[in-house]
Amino acid sequence: MPPSKPQPDSTYALLGRVEKPADLRELAPEQLPLLATEVRRSLIETLGRVGGHFGANLGAVELAITLHYAFDTPNDRLIWDVGHQAYPHKILTGRRRQLDTIRKLGGLAPFPCRDESEYDAFGVGHSSTSISAAAGMAAARKVTGQQRDVVAVIGDGGMTAGLAFEALNHLGSTGLDVLVVYNDNDMSISENVGGLREHSARLVKKLQESAATESLRNSAFERPSASRSVSAEREAGALFETLGMHYFGPVDGHDTDALLAAFEKARNTPGPKLLHVLTVKGYGFAPAEADPIKYHAVPGFDPVTGATPPKKPHAKPTYTDVFSDWICQMAEAHPTLVAVTPAMREGSGLVEFQRRYPERYFDVAIAEQHAVTFGAGLAADGAKPVVAIYSSFLQRGYDQLVHDVALQDLPVLFAIDRGGLVGGDGATHHGAYDLSYLRCVPNLTLMAPADEEECQRLLSTGLMHNGPSAVRYPRGTGPGVEISGEAKPIPIGKARIVRQGKGRRQPRVAILSFGPMLAPALEAGDILDADVVDMRFIKPLDERIILDMANQNDLIVTLEDNAVSGGAGSAVNEVLLAQHDQVRVLNLGLPDQFIEHGEREELLQQCGLDTTGILSAIRKRLRARDLDTTLDNLQSGGRGTVSMTRGGSRD
Amino acid sequence: MPPSKPQPDSTYALLGRVEKPADLRELAPEQLPLLATEVRRSLIETLGRVGGHFGANLGAVELAITLHYAFDTPNDRLIWDVGHQAYPHKILTGRRRQLDTIRKLGGLAPFPCRDESEYDAFGVGHSSTSISAAAGMAAARKVTGQQRDVVAVIGDGGMTAGLAFEALNHLGSTGLDVLVVYNDNDMSISENVGGLREHSARLVKKLQESAATESLRNSAFERPSASRSVSAEREAGALFETLGMHYFGPVDGHDTDALLAAFEKARNTPGPKLLHVLTVKGYGFAPAEADPIKYHAVPGFDPVTGATPPKKPHAKPTYTDVFSDWICQMAEAHPTLVAVTPAMREGSGLVEFQRRYPERYFDVAIAEQHAVTFGAGLAADGAKPVVAIYSSFLQRGYDQLVHDVALQDLPVLFAIDRGGLVGGDGATHHGAYDLSYLRCVPNLTLMAPADEEECQRLLSTGLMHNGPSAVRYPRGTGPGVEISGEAKPIPIGKARIVRQGKGRRQPRVAILSFGPMLAPALEAGDILDADVVDMRFIKPLDERIILDMANQNDLIVTLEDNAVSGGAGSAVNEVLLAQHDQVRVLNLGLPDQFIEHGEREELLQQCGLDTTGILSAIRKRLRARDLDTTLDNLQSGGRGTVSMTRGGSRD
Repeated sequence: MPPSKPQPDSTYALLGRVEKPADLRELAPEQLPLLATEVRRSLIETLGRVGGHFGANLGAVELAITLHYAFDTPNDRLIWDVGHQAYPHKILTGRRRQLDTIRKLGGLAPFPCRDESEYDAFGVGHSSTSISAAAGMAAARKVTGQQRDVVAVIGDGGMTAGLAFEALNHLGSTGLDVLVVYNDNDMSISENVGGLREHSARLVKKLQESAATESLRNSAFERPSASRSVSAEREAGALFETLGMHYFGPVDGHDTDALLAAFEKARNTPGPKLLHVLTVKGYGFAPAEADPIKYHAVPGFDPVTGATPPKKPHAKPTYTDVFSDWICQMAEAHPTLVAVTPAMREGSGLVEFQRRYPERYFDVAIAEQHAVTFGAGLAADGAKPVVAIYSSFLQRGYDQLVHDVALQDLPVLFAIDRGGLVGGDGATHHGAYDLSYLRCVPNLTLMAPADEEECQRLLSTGLMHNGPSAVRYPRGTGPGVEISGEAKPIPIGKARIVRQGKGRRQPRVAILSFGPMLAPALEAGDILDADVVDMRFIKPLDERIILDMANQNDLIVTLEDNAVSGGAGSAVNEVLLAQHDQVRVLNLGLPDQFIEHGEREELLQQCGLDTTGILSAIRKRLRARDLDTTLDNLQSGGRGTVSMTRGGSRD
Repeated sequence: MPPSKPQPDSTYALLGRVEKPADLRELAPEQLPLLATEVRRSLIETLGRVGGHFGANLGAVELAITLHYAFDTPNDRLIWDVGHQAYPHKILTGRRRQLDTIRKLGGLAPFPCRDESEYDAFGVGHSSTSISAAAGMAAARKVTGQQRDVVAVIGDGGMTAGLAFEALNHLGSTGLDVLVVYNDNDMSISENVGGLREHSARLVKKLQESAATESLRNSAFERPSASRSVSAEREAGALFETLGMHYFGPVDGHDTDALLAAFEKARNTPGPKLLHVLTVKGYGFAPAEADPIKYHAVPGFDPVTGATPPKKPHAKPTYTDVFSDWICQMAEAHPTLVAVTPAMREGSGLVEFQRRYPERYFDVAIAEQHAVTFGAGLAADGAKPVVAIYSSFLQRGYDQLVHDVALQDLPVLFAIDRGGLVGGDGATHHGAYDLSYLRCVPNLTLMAPADEEECQRLLSTGLMHNGPSAVRYPRGTGPGVEISGEAKPIPIGKARIVRQGKGRRQPRVAILSFGPMLAPALEAGDILDADVVDMRFIKPLDERIILDMANQNDLIVTLEDNAVSGGAGSAVNEVLLAQHDQVRVLNLGLPDQFIEHGEREELLQQCGLDTTGILSAIRKRLRARDLDTTLDNLQSGGRGTVSMTRGGSRD
């Protein structure tokens, strides 16, 4: 499908005049539905071309318009939870023409971002932070004397996370004036799960059965008739009212008049309050309404038919696919294997597992903490839990991993997807710290495969191990190594030497590579005639190989796509320094800064972790210590005879 | 108060016969109240002598007795949340005579612990894990074919944590048969806070007003009369029912007959269910009922009057006191300073702050995630939040610290108490990993004071810094340095040389000390005539001093009470190896294993982190590389002339 040409502004009669929310507020209320249509068209046109998060944004168009219409942004604070739903907000706040750069290097951030716009009151990415942030802002208002409204918009998926509950429980007791807009579309990325969701679905069904659309639209604001939805409405509000929130709703989230009336009413009720809004994910684009999972995020599509580009017959499976195949295979052999996911069935590769083994599949909703301790409970009583989780989301379950799993030495296997740099989702989603925050945890076996076959083998290693373990692999595809299908475990702590230098070059370099960095390590290794080791285990390390490499080489290079600070290389340092007095080491990995969005390869290159960057860093490290002749020798690629001075004197 | 002699078993007519729950189940139901009296007497006698968690245990006596009576433990699973309340359970499961060893080195664990007893189904310590674990065990039952009941007992304090909510939301939708006993005493350690608590308090008041004790006792099991507690009961259950749980109660938690009847009824209702039990913290011991905060945990007391030993006029303040004074002082100067605590007002030293600045004090309940993101919201809108939190509990807010605070570079100051080894609370509560999991986080300034004055100065440094910062200090007292009261900020990243070696000894040693390890570092330094540096900053490090020390010494020793893996020493390694080829380093810190309970000094000694251990490790490290004569020289303390071989050849 060739990219279609962007439509000129003249096609947007109203939207063309809205450069910022103040322009929007010049419109008459009855113009807002047309504006919504144009925003939706703009979304469909742009995302059809370039892809991005889609379904939730279509569902939040009227919300974005009416919130900016009713509230005095940016002075009033508007916080979009997760940010999957914030594209209309970006369109309305001066970023429409850049929307086609979203998620690209140097382009718009994938989510709201304080550095990008004064209208982005709070940066988001992980779900369920908005109510806490809004409560904090309302509390700040008390001490700074600011005059402003604070509004959080949270989806029903985000409401399942404990953070949202903690925030409501606190906010409800404070008297702080905060409006929480609960955008209920019965979806996170997959269908929602959990008791709250089932309750909400029952409620919506009841309301639909008992009321026409018109009365639903106004149900929040009229006295309900006894014959209708009294009990349903009471039920809907009970949870929130128990926590101390004023409850309003539900209201039709695609009816701008109803929304404006609801905001007005809520604004006139001081204190913490929640407005329950019902929306349809993908609203206004039939293919997305019909298949909201597919259209949650898209690579692009035909703006008329919704047809997405045909999937290329994958030359290579993604690591997610590799995990998916592995867990289905293992489930057959291990009847007590259980898979746990915090609402990432598609992303973590558990669709097929759920189809085949529904009894052993647990989607616990967006609830990483619970996912981990639930796994601990499973393991404590003899099941074999595999907790599939994204690296950056595991940060949410860190205490549970330490306190419930590792401390009790329970055999929970963590299948950590999205380790390292993830690409378009950017800074909030990079799995840049997991090796650092995990390797300090006692009892944990921590692994990172260099290729697809090794990924399956290390997963098996973890599954067979009678203690906690984690296999961490990146987003996307690997080098394309053929998978034998045996998935034979690897002895714990055993690295493998992938390339043996021929010793023809001085200085002699060994590259200790962790995980997916093996590919550039080998390229660099060929150029340098270096030893290259695929470490496979971050914990326990193969100390024997590390010491051998140190003895046989002039420089040890550690290479990882985790932060250098405290990462795998830092573990190598600890081993070397405990035994060696004289050792030259170069730790390569992610720098000590948050890394933006862009293609994974672009970002690795920016961090100096492509082959060129690696070679350049090695040369620089050698240059800092060695004779220029050595360097020249290295650069020219010749087989010089001038040996590096080993163990030169100190500064 | 001299310790009273333990009473002989003959004084316990019933308890003397109960070595295990099976013995208990031999009793008639009408004997259980007398047994409860004896368990309570035993608790009062033992804890009066040796101290420990007290109030919550008195409140859970009837619960422990009836649960073991009604359920077939240990086959049935009984999980005590947090474990503050599990002493009666320990008494009834064969550990009565060891109860006076609790929290002591080699003695009973402070909380339930799987390694200690088959009756401890799940190890606990941090709150709110029990429902997740119970759900996991019930799910394990599905795949293993085990036949057993699974019961979790969670206090109302624990119910405020997001983890508990996540677990209920999941459990409520699964159909898994789990009984959650909700032990509602309106207290965590301080009074509970939050909307849920206020709701619960209203409910209890309503019930008390509308019903005699007798009818309260049975209210769960009789059809409530329309005139009485219909609405109150509906309210009580609404939150849990919304999440899909069957709700029973409330029932009087000190009435064994009522409890047994309630368990029976709940057992006959398959699926996820919650029994709401009302108890009184400190029940049966008047002083503890009257002052539950004081008697939450006690150092010992008079078993008749409850009188606690008079507080020694403190020669030295604790670090908590030091923080407490500091924040009150700063609050005066900084009108936008706001303090946030997740339910640790007393433990974190915020009692006085709350008294003086109630409008700027936020106890968010046991809700570490929210505490952190709430702080981020405060900072985003111009307040100066100080989030006071225990090191091991900050693990619960890790993602929020990374994603909401550090990524947005927001000026939130974390006052991290209980860094390092905490003593009696043991493995679940040691703050052994914070330097590792924090130092990989970009933008964060991470500090550890060596004494009281420096603690206040570093706190000021963080408060004045326009970015995220954390000051980490240990439990208990420091060296007793006088506090000037100025609390002047320290330039960020500036270490201080505390001891300068006179260069009279070979080999020359420098000790880089982090935080409270300065005291033994100085003792060792005196013996070795070493340079000793108080590093103060883990991030950013004072690289200049580190490199100077490396240039001027033969061995760099790093010393911290964090795990060596990825800790502060590991950060020093990274700096040194980036610049030096030839450097002798010894990283001293906590070993790569979970450390049990005991006095802080005992544990440090066990880890080799007292002066003797430090000297011994240094000698061993030198011996490994150097001439014996050097070693002898060092050991004899003489001023030998045999210099160490610097930069000896490799292995």
